[in-house]
Amino acid sequence: MRQAMAEAEVGDDVFGEDPTVNELQKMAAELFGMEAALYVPSGTMANLIAVMVHCRERGDEMIVGDLSHLHIYEQGGTAQLAGVHSTTVTTLPDGTFDLDQLESKIRHGYPDAHYPRSRLVCVENTHNIQGGRVLPLPFLKEVKALAEKYGLAVHMDGARMMNAAVAQNVTPSTILQNTHSVSVCLSKGLGAPVGTMLAGPHDFISRATRCRKALGGGLRQAGILAAAGKLALGDMITRLEEDHHHARIFAQALLECDPPLYEVDMAAVQTNIVRFRLRDPSLTPTEFCTLMAGVGECEQASIGQGVRVLMFPHIGGSIRAVWHLGVTLEDTQLATRKVQFVARQHSQQTLGAH
Amino acid sequence: MRQAMAEAEVGDDVFGEDPTVNELQKMAAELFGMEAALYVPSGTMANLIAVMVHCRERGDEMIVGDLSHLHIYEQGGTAQLAGVHSTTVTTLPDGTFDLDQLESKIRHGYPDAHYPRSRLVCVENTHNIQGGRVLPLPFLKEVKALAEKYGLAVHMDGARMMNAAVAQNVTPSTILQNTHSVSVCLSKGLGAPVGTMLAGPHDFISRATRCRKALGGGLRQAGILAAAGKLALGDMITRLEEDHHHARIFAQALLECDPPLYEVDMAAVQTNIVRFRLRDPSLTPTEFCTLMAGVGECEQASIGQGVRVLMFPHIGGSIRAVWHLGVTLEDTQLATRKVQFVARQHSQQTLGAH
Amino acid sequence: MRQAMAEAEVGDDVFGEDPTVNELQKMAAELFGMEAALYVPSGTMANLIAVMVHCRERGDEMIVGDLSHLHIYEQGGTAQLAGVHSTTVTTLPDGTFDLDQLESKIRHGYPDAHYPRSRLVCVENTHNIQGGRVLPLPFLKEVKALAEKYGLAVHMDGARMMNAAVAQNVTPSTILQNTHSVSVCLSKGLGAPVGTMLAGPHDFISRATRCRKALGGGLRQAGILAAAGKLALGDMITRLEEDHHHARIFAQALLECDPPLYEVDMAAVQTNIVRFRLRDPSLTPTEFCTLMAGVGECEQASIGQGVRVLMFPHIGGSIRAVWHLGVTLEDTQLATRKVQFVARQHSQQTLGAH
Amino acid sequence: MRQAMAEAEVGDDVFGEDPTVNELQKMAAELFGMEAALYVPSGTMANLIAVMVHCRERGDEMIVGDLSHLHIYEQGGTAQLAGVHSTTVTTLPDGTFDLDQLESKIRHGYPDAHYPRSRLVCVENTHNIQGGRVLPLPFLKEVKALAEKYGLAVHMDGARMMNAAVAQNVTPSTILQNTHSVSVCLSKGLGAPVGTMLAGPHDFISRATRCRKALGGGLRQAGILAAAGKLALGDMITRLEEDHHHARIFAQALLECDPPLYEVDMAAVQTNIVRFRLRDPSLTPTEFCTLMAGVGECEQASIGQGVRVLMFPHIGGSIRAVWHLGVTLEDTQLATRKVQFVARQHSQQTLGAH
Repeated sequence: MRQAMAEAEVGDDVFGEDPTVNELQKMAAELFGMEAALYVPSGTMANLIAVMVHCRERGDEMIVGDLSHLHIYEQGGTAQLAGVHSTTVTTLPDGTFDLDQLESKIRHGYPDAHYPRSRLVCVENTHNIQGGRVLPLPFLKEVKALAEKYGLAVHMDGARMMNAAVAQNVTPSTILQNTHSVSVCLSKGLGAPVGTMLAGPHDFISRATRCRKALGGGLRQAGILAAAGKLALGDMITRLEEDHHHARIFAQALLECDPPLYEVDMAAVQTNIVRFRLRDPSLTPTEFCTLMAGVGECEQASIGQGVRVLMFPHIGGSIRAVWHLGVTLEDTQLATRKVQFVARQHSQQTLGAH
Repeated sequence: MRQAMAEAEVGDDVFGEDPTVNELQKMAAELFGMEAALYVPSGTMANLIAVMVHCRERGDEMIVGDLSHLHIYEQGGTAQLAGVHSTTVTTLPDGTFDLDQLESKIRHGYPDAHYPRSRLVCVENTHNIQGGRVLPLPFLKEVKALAEKYGLAVHMDGARMMNAAVAQNVTPSTILQNTHSVSVCLSKGLGAPVGTMLAGPHDFISRATRCRKALGGGLRQAGILAAAGKLALGDMITRLEEDHHHARIFAQALLECDPPLYEVDMAAVQTNIVRFRLRDPSLTPTEFCTLMAGVGECEQASIGQGVRVLMFPHIGGSIRAVWHLGVTLEDTQLATRKVQFVARQHSQQTLGAH
Repeated sequence: MRQAMAEAEVGDDVFGEDPTVNELQKMAAELFGMEAALYVPSGTMANLIAVMVHCRERGDEMIVGDLSHLHIYEQGGTAQLAGVHSTTVTTLPDGTFDLDQLESKIRHGYPDAHYPRSRLVCVENTHNIQGGRVLPLPFLKEVKALAEKYGLAVHMDGARMMNAAVAQNVTPSTILQNTHSVSVCLSKGLGAPVGTMLAGPHDFISRATRCRKALGGGLRQAGILAAAGKLALGDMITRLEEDHHHARIFAQALLECDPPLYEVDMAAVQTNIVRFRLRDPSLTPTEFCTLMAGVGECEQASIGQGVRVLMFPHIGGSIRAVWHLGVTLEDTQLATRKVQFVARQHSQQTLGAH
Repeated sequence: MRQAMAEAEVGDDVFGEDPTVNELQKMAAELFGMEAALYVPSGTMANLIAVMVHCRERGDEMIVGDLSHLHIYEQGGTAQLAGVHSTTVTTLPDGTFDLDQLESKIRHGYPDAHYPRSRLVCVENTHNIQGGRVLPLPFLKEVKALAEKYGLAVHMDGARMMNAAVAQNVTPSTILQNTHSVSVCLSKGLGAPVGTMLAGPHDFISRATRCRKALGGGLRQAGILAAAGKLALGDMITRLEEDHHHARIFAQALLECDPPLYEVDMAAVQTNIVRFRLRDPSLTPTEFCTLMAGVGECEQASIGQGVRVLMFPHIGGSIRAVWHLGVTLEDTQLATRKVQFVARQHSQQTLGAH
């Protein structure tokens, strides 16, 4: 990938003249079954632009899951920078939300001046906080039907949409025919260093290009990054199944660990994320992470580097592990041994304390 | 009140020179136990200004009940105009929310750039959608303690705060010692034609004055309106108990109605609002309202004028009646007879249909 | 006027049910030759709403005179609250601006993402900072033609538009056929305590009503204020000529004053504002005002109350006097004597110093 | 440079863990004599962030030259996204502005609610529209002194600040000691494909990091781009003098061209930009560009590729040529022959027409 970047043909993308960027955008549009696509520096910017384009008049409102990345982890940029009000629906454990609740949140009273105008529904696929859960296709279809019934658009925060396509064994366009726009991350599992594709209808992308410029996301010789993006949307997709495979191996090992320290819902391990809990409430997630780090130092330093365990203490004490390009089967096996080691160690200390 | 308005001494309040406005502001500050107060044209503007002052740096966030007026009925102005992101806590049936949930919504991760900064908690007292429920004083005390623990401020949307004080038989300042700022409506039950008092510390009011001007709420000879405001905050307060009394009479009549068409939770009838439901799901709130209007025409036209029944179909099919200056005991009794008439009429039609 | 206010029939204008407000709005629309009108609490809000409606998509820009009230004295609310960028044209001494400069500021490069979209041209009539100058009708006609050539709208900040109509001896609609929207102040010369009329096409007013609500300018029983507004737009208009007459008397007295301390351009005294300068640079406007105030105390206290002299030190040391309802001919004559007194006093002191 | 990018050591910069980015930021801070620096995807974003940080409370205003890039070419993002009002000073032909005018634009009346609060003065160095003019150091010193007198900050849009340093033969910090923050472009003359450095005090950069994230400018493995940035701020600086040299050669050729078609002010050719005019008003800049393109096709195709002539028809019919990495001495000589060819061609056609 670095090689491709080093050899990329470039131009000034601010003037739409970077051939590699143009190829990447065409490639993404075709892959996603959308009219057009735009290279954007980050997923946060892609989502923000999507909201800015869909909710482009003052007093527009979006409906979003209360546990969605867009609502929680993007600094409230939709309100801060775009002046768009958010109303939330309750994110369910599988990443979906209740359609009746969604319908009740649409502002039926508009144009009553008490209300903003409902303009947009956002879905997240796969769902980050809910552990990489894949949104069922019938759910997406119903969301779109409901949105269109009331004249709303649907945007998918599809940072990991390719993981969903791989897990469901469908083409991206099979998923995306149910949305009006989508953002798809080129980094993370797909391995590009920087960038997100934003896709939708021609008019949407025209407006998005303006928003990108206003936000400062118009890059000059972006072709170097786009060259990596082309590989990410090409060969890299097939390797996502590896991540899912590794995640399942790890989750299975957590489940079978003896002594039984870990709780994990195998049905929820659908893509490259494993969320698990500790059975012993006396061991906090934070302490557990310290123990894991300690193992790496005293036993095998390479484990600590290969596997990255991110803690989300706000999600009820769960621990979250993510697989991506660079975490090999061997790394996964090392991680497996590591969690087993910690379980044994903890068990002995607990016994010793009695 | 009109007389007082006609005789009001005025000046240019844009320059702080209207004596009647100044008197009203001093009176409100003293009544509320706050350092200073500001006359504002409406409750929506008062709440918006409060949010603008408390959340005055970019990236600030407020926490608000998901059924609060500020979140639902003010056109999303806090995001639209002030760029303030909202995160919601679940409004409970008594108008409060869970304190653990509140604590979980405060952004412990700040200054992590993924997060906005939590700045403000808003409470609503009495709670409009929840039927005029009075917030318990211990709840308010705990909210303030929790907010201050994390450096947040508390603003009370106290459009009907005086109703709460009357219902709890405490002084306004007993309630308001638990908040950093408050908006109190001079119209509605207090009978002034226009205006809301916003109160808080000196620095808060200085900044609020600037925000009011930017929003276009700086009025010239506002003394005419302030003259009415002075009466509203004076003699009018004692008459709120009448509204509460009338509401209880009406609610009791609904409960005792024979045939039994109405469902009403007497414990929830705490101030001047009665929310009730229809026991027969075949009769929709909308149809019920049409029937009520019909009664007025065929039987007693005066009923229709005296009682105003507002429907909020989004709140699970409930019907909401509100008492204020101008709805007398006689009006209430007429309304009572009216709902009884509709119940009998509906019962006969239902029987006849079998 | 107070009488009319005391007897006004009112309703809840938030629901469009205040009959007096509705009458006022109909009356204003007819008088201005516009499809519809809206009662708004202040001129600042009316202008802000106009900008919000005309520039309603993100990335819209307005073109405004660099000495206009909207640009200088409204706290930058168009950017602060509405996110609308301003580009300025140079306000000329007669309140107009150069049409070639205007054309050069329209963004011909749009939709080039470097540029905002030009949407609106604002004119101010009469022009406040330029001393109440009346915009010539041909200028207005050309501005509108130029704006429409490029798809822009024209909004008139017509706080004193009625003064222009009186000075030009034309109907308001003769002026306003050259604009798409206008705000006209009911206070100031027209004598109402509070309020501004915003007028334009039906669609404009529908959207304006929503913006007014979001800003908190939706009032309840606004009819009390509207009753005064109806008088302001009725009998009061004819009395504006008195203000103009008084202003001319005062300006003439400045000119003829012996010793000659004052500089005033009679051709610029077109309405109710007189701007003048001091010939002696050793006497600053601020010192002059102190002297004037001193005269009031030692000689005739009534002068000080009747005439209000506002200083605008940023406009190159000029002094500005404004006539409105309440400043009688007698007040004007007292003011005249006062400036003569100060001139003599200053002359003697200057001589004495040599 | 591509080689360095291909071999760059990277990490996740969203978590501040990309070593190459960290090195670049340290390097830039030292070079600029600032406490800290931040890698930002574009100059537009760097300027926007600077405004967001300096003007971080609602109602803040910036003062900016009316011909500055920030005011004209960045889509009005400061108002659109950051809600910051702009007031302008007149950009003089040398890129500076009048200090008395600047002082008059500072809001002396604050906290009068009519005014926004003046917070920031922006300068541009070298000045783009004014043809790459270098701001004199005494001017910068006076601007800073004036700004600080009133509590304002100074931000330099220093996209081409390194050109100024080279032209003035001073260190960057000699220039930047006169500003509180600066943005410096790594692309353009310095040859990096993407990116701008934003520098200022520690607190400024902490806040800027948050703004960058909200705007979507937080990149993942940005080290690949930063590797190029390190070269740009290293060896590349010395080569800027080449661009200036080439620009002077070209300007001199324009001046000496026979027949004399071109007008150019040699004193204004200070860095890598040449602005010139056509002496014959019958030949428009647009027609001239078409002729230039035609030369490339019929004579020497390589000319057309090597030299890029950008037209800015809004700046009074001038034509602008820019030198950067990739435009060699040979390219410059070809361009020189090209303008001579067009001059001769035009002269013959004009004669032939008589």
